[in-house]
Amino acid sequence: MFLDKRHWQTIWPSDCGNYVSIINQALLPHKFEILKLFTLEEFYLAIKNMLVRGAPLIGVTAAYGIAFGIKENSSDEVLNNCFNYLNSSRPTAVNLKWALNRVLNKIKNLPLEKRFSVALEEANKIRNEDIEMCKSIGNHGSKLLLDIYQKKSFSNKRAKLNILTHCNAGWLATVDWGTALAPIYAIKRMGVDLHVWVDETRPRNQGGSLTSFELNGEKISNTIIVDNAGGYLMQKGLVDVVLVGSDRTTKKGDVCNKIGTYLKALAARDNNIPFFVALPTSTIDLEIENGLDEIEIEMRSTKEVSQITGLTNSGKFESVNLFPEKSNCLNPAFDVTPSKLVNALITEKGIIDSNYEGIKNLFL
Amino acid sequence: MFLDKRHWQTIWPSDCGNYVSIINQALLPHKFEILKLFTLEEFYLAIKNMLVRGAPLIGVTAAYGIAFGIKENSSDEVLNNCFNYLNSSRPTAVNLKWALNRVLNKIKNLPLEKRFSVALEEANKIRNEDIEMCKSIGNHGSKLLLDIYQKKSFSNKRAKLNILTHCNAGWLATVDWGTALAPIYAIKRMGVDLHVWVDETRPRNQGGSLTSFELNGEKISNTIIVDNAGGYLMQKGLVDVVLVGSDRTTKKGDVCNKIGTYLKALAARDNNIPFFVALPTSTIDLEIENGLDEIEIEMRSTKEVSQITGLTNSGKFESVNLFPEKSNCLNPAFDVTPSKLVNALITEKGIIDSNYEGIKNLFL
Repeated sequence: MFLDKRHWQTIWPSDCGNYVSIINQALLPHKFEILKLFTLEEFYLAIKNMLVRGAPLIGVTAAYGIAFGIKENSSDEVLNNCFNYLNSSRPTAVNLKWALNRVLNKIKNLPLEKRFSVALEEANKIRNEDIEMCKSIGNHGSKLLLDIYQKKSFSNKRAKLNILTHCNAGWLATVDWGTALAPIYAIKRMGVDLHVWVDETRPRNQGGSLTSFELNGEKISNTIIVDNAGGYLMQKGLVDVVLVGSDRTTKKGDVCNKIGTYLKALAARDNNIPFFVALPTSTIDLEIENGLDEIEIEMRSTKEVSQITGLTNSGKFESVNLFPEKSNCLNPAFDVTPSKLVNALITEKGIIDSNYEGIKNLFL
Repeated sequence: MFLDKRHWQTIWPSDCGNYVSIINQALLPHKFEILKLFTLEEFYLAIKNMLVRGAPLIGVTAAYGIAFGIKENSSDEVLNNCFNYLNSSRPTAVNLKWALNRVLNKIKNLPLEKRFSVALEEANKIRNEDIEMCKSIGNHGSKLLLDIYQKKSFSNKRAKLNILTHCNAGWLATVDWGTALAPIYAIKRMGVDLHVWVDETRPRNQGGSLTSFELNGEKISNTIIVDNAGGYLMQKGLVDVVLVGSDRTTKKGDVCNKIGTYLKALAARDNNIPFFVALPTSTIDLEIENGLDEIEIEMRSTKEVSQITGLTNSGKFESVNLFPEKSNCLNPAFDVTPSKLVNALITEKGIIDSNYEGIKNLFL
């Protein structure tokens, strides 16, 4: 996607195959920095310290990590050590293990001298597949958005499509395009006049810091709001459609996504606004049915709630404490939006209903 | 209410009638400081710079302000100047003008030498009435809470009552007791085992910084959560009742309160949890019916969204910028919860239904 008129992706290999470049997302939106990763340790730390984040991007980074980890010595022992080390960087990320396994299985029966080049090739393939998958979500989702836009502009030629989104499910969480933001980028390129309401998404503020940053780069008009404000905007007719991502979707279509998603789904329903969820089919979990009972919600550090980091007016990164020292916090990271509140699921294989039937057909 | 085992109120006159003391709320929760106000200018700045906040407290402060403003010279000209000056300190606060008018009308026909003492007496009266009004809200509301607690503890003897609240409608917004928090303080003193979920209440974080601070002072178990988390807690059965304040209530019972209240009302309804609103009857506006159409929502400075102030680890107050420099924000301060989502209104005159009938009976 674009930033300052130049096209970027979140991760790309050097032509010579000597290193991999990433955008250091830990400094966004305040500082844009490219880092070169050469060694296993550097890949590990990039994932662990969230210089790269978002399940798809973590997977791709790990795939490159295992390749560069065996570059000098690709013995079985080193290969296994690399796998375990990288796999421990973010233990809860499903994509991480999936990507590592894919590279491992591809090379483990190959002669040592071929392992690095084949691993690198496989990482490139995972990277390219991710781009295609997101593009495809963008294409399918764009039809839903265009439909709403056309209805709106039928009665008002100067209509602008107002989309509300929560958290960051954009290209910074993938290699390019993103999931929930992919349909938005797609219709922007078709010339649709649009505006995005960006939930800041406490406690980590991925909306305010990453989504708005992405949209600015693509010159898409956007406005950051506190998470409390979305309901009011919907009541006032200022939102035409809500579009979010998903971390995990059950076989009946319950959607586990960033905390606060459920509140927006309720408000959308109360105001007759379509609520769409964009997701790769790889995040559908056919083992579980009732998201609310069966998905264990990660409780993250309370420091994410009580402390916040930003840039002082003199340009220095600074963390400040917000609450009384004695006070307790709780920080559930996700919530579950029941399928009944979801109007459609947008996948790389097409648009489906958020129910058993729709999801079953996807895997036929 | 209590702080560190000592009883405090937000504003009180000195015995000698020479000054008025306030808690400097601009420094809370990080620093507890008492200020003495002597001059008109000091009262004006205390309101304007939000050293005191909350409609009832602003009214009381202004009443004292006009009294001290005419202490040295109580001519008609000075009196009118004091009125206009104080009235301009927070132009949108209805209580401010109401309190100023009350003092003005009381003294304007009196001889000059009596004006100061009568004005001071009237300010004391307004202050005392506010305390009684809040106490009464506490008494009435405690019955509703006790009812829920008794039902819960009937099936589980070790039950704890879990209350969720949004923003700060506690004693810091009034003189003592508060509105939404008054019933909570009342049942705490009856020995009910309770816990309060405190919405941090972005953008100004009155929940995390003031409500939690108040509850800590009264030794009421409480946990700060981001505004996004309340829906999840309700889905999980961790909230028994939602209790909030109101800035303005229409004659059919629509409630205009801090932005984000509506989202919590929706989640409460979706999970069959009672949603109560505590308010002084003086904030009921019989001129308006449909809150969503008829109440103009104040759009506040976008800096409240994009900048946040806290305490660094080295104990320094610091403001940091959170978002991309180029990004726009919008900051609606309130939203409207339709009366259909409100289970009851708790007023100083009793509990009523949130509809025409209930509100009409209140004024018979």
